[in-house]
Amino acid sequence: MTRSELFEQIKKKRSYLCVGLDTALDKIPKHLLDTEDPIFEFNKRIIDATSDYAVAYKPNIAFYEAYGVKGWESLEKTIGYIPKDIFTIADAKRGDIGNTSKMYAKAFFENMNFDSITVAPYMGIDSVSPFLEFDEKWVVLLGLTSNEGGKDFQYLELTKGGNLYEEVLRKSSTWANEDCLMYVVGATRADALENIREIIPNHFLLVPGVGAQGGSLEEVSKYGMNDSCGLLVNSSRGIIYASDKEDFAEVAGQKAKELQSEMNNYLTKYL
Amino acid sequence: MTRSELFEQIKKKRSYLCVGLDTALDKIPKHLLDTEDPIFEFNKRIIDATSDYAVAYKPNIAFYEAYGVKGWESLEKTIGYIPKDIFTIADAKRGDIGNTSKMYAKAFFENMNFDSITVAPYMGIDSVSPFLEFDEKWVVLLGLTSNEGGKDFQYLELTKGGNLYEEVLRKSSTWANEDCLMYVVGATRADALENIREIIPNHFLLVPGVGAQGGSLEEVSKYGMNDSCGLLVNSSRGIIYASDKEDFAEVAGQKAKELQSEMNNYLTKYL
Repeated sequence: MTRSELFEQIKKKRSYLCVGLDTALDKIPKHLLDTEDPIFEFNKRIIDATSDYAVAYKPNIAFYEAYGVKGWESLEKTIGYIPKDIFTIADAKRGDIGNTSKMYAKAFFENMNFDSITVAPYMGIDSVSPFLEFDEKWVVLLGLTSNEGGKDFQYLELTKGGNLYEEVLRKSSTWANEDCLMYVVGATRADALENIREIIPNHFLLVPGVGAQGGSLEEVSKYGMNDSCGLLVNSSRGIIYASDKEDFAEVAGQKAKELQSEMNNYLTKYL
Repeated sequence: MTRSELFEQIKKKRSYLCVGLDTALDKIPKHLLDTEDPIFEFNKRIIDATSDYAVAYKPNIAFYEAYGVKGWESLEKTIGYIPKDIFTIADAKRGDIGNTSKMYAKAFFENMNFDSITVAPYMGIDSVSPFLEFDEKWVVLLGLTSNEGGKDFQYLELTKGGNLYEEVLRKSSTWANEDCLMYVVGATRADALENIREIIPNHFLLVPGVGAQGGSLEEVSKYGMNDSCGLLVNSSRGIIYASDKEDFAEVAGQKAKELQSEMNNYLTKYL
């Protein structure tokens, strides 16, 4: 998917919501466990209920790998089921040298036709460039993460100035432009977002940590939005596990609609 | 596997060789392509031919994921086939927050019974600790990588002194001791290894980059060995693709034996 196609979706749906498919057998409603493929059955109904409000889906690959071959089958069926005009993110956080990254690109871009994959920056440009050789495919690079351990290294101050995560943003943004590179930015505070937008004004930011993880959608929208929206805000548990009863899909749809409605306001206010 | 069991293997086989199973359909001998599961068939014969000389096997997970469900099946069969007294490394370079890392741990430690998994450090302690909750299982953390892009961030100098990869070694070595934590160290130069051994004298180092990638086994052994050996030296292509004919397994066995024989000398000389 191209950046302008993504922006068209955002304008059409008045939403920049990404729904995270962190689907686990011990979290989904019990009545689904008797179906042939409970993970896929759950995802299918979540997608049906939320696709009017979401512009992106993000399966968390760990959750599928945890079920081995069966999980991989559920993942392949899920990605095949997501409507083609919705952006898809393989949240895999891969990162390896060139010939290995090529194999990951084959797995996620060719075999499963994901639009994008999350990538870790530690091994540098070699871990990013093999993914960029695919037309209309994207790398979503870890910039700043919102977990507690994110502080262990990402905020280290550098003698050349700034800190590690800023240098990751700065350097990697010279490897690819905003048409094929996005960033994971777990920042929900205004000052951090303003700082990030000074370094990478034009790139899309994938922002987790809103909802269950406590970030403010308004702050993110106010300080993170650019003139192509430039935001995908993810919610996983807050939507897909909002109910563990038979009405789970309906409730997920309501939660997605509430977020979309709030996003509609911010699109009007800040864009 | 415990550290003392690993060291026993090393002393028994007079080897610290790890064989990398980077198995790709377009690289294996043509006559295997007619078998039901060519990837597993190849691995099986490589394992049979090299298991007297290797103390560890390291499947590169990307190569299996690239073939989707079938690849995942080949991987599960491969790990099931490796003799239980040989150390196994899932070269997956995973790294995510707690609940996601738990799912990866389930995939690789519970379902497939790998002894260890390679992990990327960018997200900090949260990406390591869930793996450490498993008895006799290991994290192999990326310290210094030998690829060109490794220089993009790993050598950045910090205001607190030292550079990023040194801080990764220093800080993470406080999270776990040498009984469950190893490091990927793509250093083949004497000075870098001496420096690394000052920071982490006791941990095992998994060293890629010997053989096809040009590192010197003698330098690595001389400057990297500690009093429990403390080294696993990996060779992938130099062994498994040494011949692409029907004699591929025999030639792989010879190559492994040559490396084992050289390692035997260094164990005598430096340990």
